[in-house]
Amino acid sequence: MVATILAKIRSTTPLVHCLTNTVVPQITANVLLAIGAAPAMIDHPEEAGIFAGIASAVLVNVGNGSGEQHEAQRAAAAAAHEAGTPWVLDPVAVGALPVRTQLARDLLAFRPAAIRGNASEILGLAGASAGGRGVDSTDPVEAAVEVARDLAIGHGCVVAVSGEVDVVVSPDRTTRVHGGDALMPLVIGTGCSLGAVVAAALGATRDVARPHDAVVAAHALFAAAGLAAAREAQGPASFEIAWRDALYKLTPDEVVELARVAEQ
Amino acid sequence: MVATILAKIRSTTPLVHCLTNTVVPQITANVLLAIGAAPAMIDHPEEAGIFAGIASAVLVNVGNGSGEQHEAQRAAAAAAHEAGTPWVLDPVAVGALPVRTQLARDLLAFRPAAIRGNASEILGLAGASAGGRGVDSTDPVEAAVEVARDLAIGHGCVVAVSGEVDVVVSPDRTTRVHGGDALMPLVIGTGCSLGAVVAAALGATRDVARPHDAVVAAHALFAAAGLAAAREAQGPASFEIAWRDALYKLTPDEVVELARVAEQ
Amino acid sequence: MVATILAKIRSTTPLVHCLTNTVVPQITANVLLAIGAAPAMIDHPEEAGIFAGIASAVLVNVGNGSGEQHEAQRAAAAAAHEAGTPWVLDPVAVGALPVRTQLARDLLAFRPAAIRGNASEILGLAGASAGGRGVDSTDPVEAAVEVARDLAIGHGCVVAVSGEVDVVVSPDRTTRVHGGDALMPLVIGTGCSLGAVVAAALGATRDVARPHDAVVAAHALFAAAGLAAAREAQGPASFEIAWRDALYKLTPDEVVELARVAEQ
Repeated sequence: MVATILAKIRSTTPLVHCLTNTVVPQITANVLLAIGAAPAMIDHPEEAGIFAGIASAVLVNVGNGSGEQHEAQRAAAAAAHEAGTPWVLDPVAVGALPVRTQLARDLLAFRPAAIRGNASEILGLAGASAGGRGVDSTDPVEAAVEVARDLAIGHGCVVAVSGEVDVVVSPDRTTRVHGGDALMPLVIGTGCSLGAVVAAALGATRDVARPHDAVVAAHALFAAAGLAAAREAQGPASFEIAWRDALYKLTPDEVVELARVAEQ
Repeated sequence: MVATILAKIRSTTPLVHCLTNTVVPQITANVLLAIGAAPAMIDHPEEAGIFAGIASAVLVNVGNGSGEQHEAQRAAAAAAHEAGTPWVLDPVAVGALPVRTQLARDLLAFRPAAIRGNASEILGLAGASAGGRGVDSTDPVEAAVEVARDLAIGHGCVVAVSGEVDVVVSPDRTTRVHGGDALMPLVIGTGCSLGAVVAAALGATRDVARPHDAVVAAHALFAAAGLAAAREAQGPASFEIAWRDALYKLTPDEVVELARVAEQ
Repeated sequence: MVATILAKIRSTTPLVHCLTNTVVPQITANVLLAIGAAPAMIDHPEEAGIFAGIASAVLVNVGNGSGEQHEAQRAAAAAAHEAGTPWVLDPVAVGALPVRTQLARDLLAFRPAAIRGNASEILGLAGASAGGRGVDSTDPVEAAVEVARDLAIGHGCVVAVSGEVDVVVSPDRTTRVHGGDALMPLVIGTGCSLGAVVAAALGATRDVARPHDAVVAAHALFAAAGLAAAREAQGPASFEIAWRDALYKLTPDEVVELARVAEQ
């Protein structure tokens, strides 16, 4: 299923509308291009809703938005919900900071297809923690799995908790994805751009795959590219280059061989 | 003429004031530094007009601006017009989205020296198309050449349509630039930073070259660097690095040898 | 002392709250991760003050801020001052542009631990010059040393003037740091991210080192990484990659061997 989903992204070039934070637009766009998707960043309140309605999928990342972008994010999530377009919520630093915490919780009403964050952010979104240290998780992934399942059940979505091992949780299913490398969290945007790739996978396969499988495929691709890049890296910058190249070069079959995906 | 213009950029270090979208400021600045120009991003409405009046050239890229940046873009275009400073309009996703479409059309009153976009954007600016798929063109370059000429005649400017082959159009002249590589559109900002390089070329050579030749020289440099980078690239990320290095390393004569420039 | 400070950054992972300009957030975050610090960009006026109070250190870079970010910068500097958290002021293009010049001067009331800029910016902040050409210095470093000392005395802080040779000035001490490479200013953000690294060094060592030594250590790290990267670079892009890798790989002792630090 992972290979099918990744091939579908390449054959359909899903248009992913990203409303993301100020640090990562460039790497997010580059990652989407590398995997065969098409990025578009549209943050104006009067344009975001229009575009969300025509995109294949939408990413709303609540890290470091302006007041104007927050308004656009509400419009985009509402428009995606209205159009039946899958959208992904990335609750960056939710729990730790008040404006984005309220925003992220409000956005849940528009029923994201998936939520992706680190353990502290998932706990923070659920109100089960005061959040991590900014974008850093201070909680282990496994500590967030049951809360992730409650979110998945409560909001009818897939919840992915990122960490050394990623855990993808649906109401009735838990999948762990092993791979990546210790250099990966030293490249800014590897987490944020994963949210965009989750959106791409959901948008490309909504007719042929369950959302849970699309979310797993996105994580498997990142895990495999991390393993491939680690062979060549001299440090985080050369890792970033090798990793972005690997996202482009790895065939779906190679991803399946490299990443270890384990159903519970 | 191409070699003369590129040498002039290096010898004069034109200061290029860029008001550009949120995805590409970093690569745009790096590209300008690589070619021998000096970048400055000034988007505050109370500073943009002042700076546009002292810069060598101005780029206004209407992709993903905030309301405040739009105000600054109007001020910068007006100030450039007033000062006789050449400025470039990049109509990102114009035609497809209403706020920027109105903005770009309003800005034409300040008489850009050049307009650079993909075919859908040029058609969208002229009102001849509903625009592409966000930043992606859904129209072939050649389909926009006659509309580009109408824009060039109507607004007294040079219009460049970017694609596999780039076409530079003036009222009385058409030049095609061949080169680049299939990996180039997989690196975000290669189009947007071309607009900045067009501005640099115009700003550096306003006394010694026709604007049409300056626009062609900018495109030839990008085409040549794309060809040079393709020899070393393993994927889009290593392409980006090799391409930015090539922008820095290629001599004007090497650019002339590599890129194929054809007058109609 | 340099080695001790750099080791302390790695062992304590200071959380650096950056309110910086739109061009450099990605490279700033990547640089902080490479040196062993943790970045967080929080620019919302209702969140910035909260976060500045819990961060290890704060960077306020006044380059190209929106009106909303300026408000956040005032809140963050005030909160850092209140909490006794060291914060760094980077007066980008101050002197040349009115809004940021007023902002930077206002922020001095919140007593930055360090100010870092090029010679024109330091002169502009002190009112001794009309500023450089945007982000470019038009004044030599040595021309700003006495004005830097006046600022250091007047505001009880360390002032670093960046250039071919960097000069770090305290009321009673002057240190010059030699190193780097001619390619370094051709990579955007090498100056701006130095401000963030100065903040990291101050935040990590406030109990064990004098601020002057922390500022010197940050400059020595950049100078050493520049020397190391120059051995491998083919141009500014490959320099950037090698330099970011070197920031990660160089041991504190290697930094001390490579960079030349000279007390007056």
